[in-house]
Amino acid sequence: MADKEISLAVIKRLPKYYRNLAELMENRVERISSKELSERMQVTASQIRQDLNNFGGFGQQGYGYNVEYLYHEIGKILGLTRTYYMIIIGSGNLGQALANYTDFEKNGFVLKNMFDQNPELIGKKIRGIEILDAAKLTQYLKVHSVDIAAITIPKENAPEVALELVKGGVKAIWNFAPTDLHLPEGVKVENVHLADNLMRLSYSLKCEE
Amino acid sequence: MADKEISLAVIKRLPKYYRNLAELMENRVERISSKELSERMQVTASQIRQDLNNFGGFGQQGYGYNVEYLYHEIGKILGLTRTYYMIIIGSGNLGQALANYTDFEKNGFVLKNMFDQNPELIGKKIRGIEILDAAKLTQYLKVHSVDIAAITIPKENAPEVALELVKGGVKAIWNFAPTDLHLPEGVKVENVHLADNLMRLSYSLKCEE
Repeated sequence: MADKEISLAVIKRLPKYYRNLAELMENRVERISSKELSERMQVTASQIRQDLNNFGGFGQQGYGYNVEYLYHEIGKILGLTRTYYMIIIGSGNLGQALANYTDFEKNGFVLKNMFDQNPELIGKKIRGIEILDAAKLTQYLKVHSVDIAAITIPKENAPEVALELVKGGVKAIWNFAPTDLHLPEGVKVENVHLADNLMRLSYSLKCEE
Repeated sequence: MADKEISLAVIKRLPKYYRNLAELMENRVERISSKELSERMQVTASQIRQDLNNFGGFGQQGYGYNVEYLYHEIGKILGLTRTYYMIIIGSGNLGQALANYTDFEKNGFVLKNMFDQNPELIGKKIRGIEILDAAKLTQYLKVHSVDIAAITIPKENAPEVALELVKGGVKAIWNFAPTDLHLPEGVKVENVHLADNLMRLSYSLKCEE
């Protein structure tokens, strides 16, 4: 399977397929036509056929898609067949909210530790996961292998911490700080810029007026 | 200005311009060339000129862009010249994290109340904003005008609550529940599907191997 040739647009849609297929499995649906899947996902059936054809097409004429098979195949494409070790930098409300998402773990994203510089938080545990002193991050990264670090700290400190993470060998950053990080090539960044969502909503509301 | 003809792709990039221009203003930068802005935003200079030409082009040959002027013009396009009343459904860690973002308020998004069904949370205040009983949501919407509702509750309850909000006149929903909401046409939804970010990171990490 030539993963690398799949367009970014398709890749971006795969988690949505994966989520919808997981829900279908929860509801004990065994197979689904592209038409039904399209109604559920609110994209066209031809889009769905096109997207899934990228992976050799898992559908069968007149039968539709086998939900569980498709779920597992998409999981493989998304790299969900191994474990990813995660840490969270910033253990305030947002960091704790992320730590409490047990769904992440089901998909192989295992939270190892959290960090903060607030003495009142250091030493506490969230779901059994200890909050460590942020001052010890560099030392920690020397002895622990971390795949993904979530950053939930104020934007002023985010660029510096991100560089510290990258120097420590972290290859992927999930950034919640409201600033764009400029990191060396090869480091993957997913931004969750919450204010951007609100602005897209205000734009839509304004156009309704 | 023909807002409605601007492509969705451009609109989606505007909050990023707005955020970068705000940072430049904080750093007391008064003007910037498309080249400098492009380096900062990590998009091509020609993309920037194209994007901003959609709004009549705020740049001047040999001078560049006036940061403050551009910031305000983009703010107008994004509908940031009025106040939007917001509520948050779900007052756990994530809801409280959102409530604590004072930056939203600076852009006109004013949080009026939060809701939860947990008796231990009802009556508490976050930044002076009271958490109300979720059972009273419908009644609340009869007497309060709400523009945007954030949903930070488990996915099982999200579709029902979203419908309750829409029936109560809410026109825009900021959905953090990990499920796609199926709402009447005209209702705007912005989804923050956190697991989707992680899956895009795992895909990138897998492709590096």
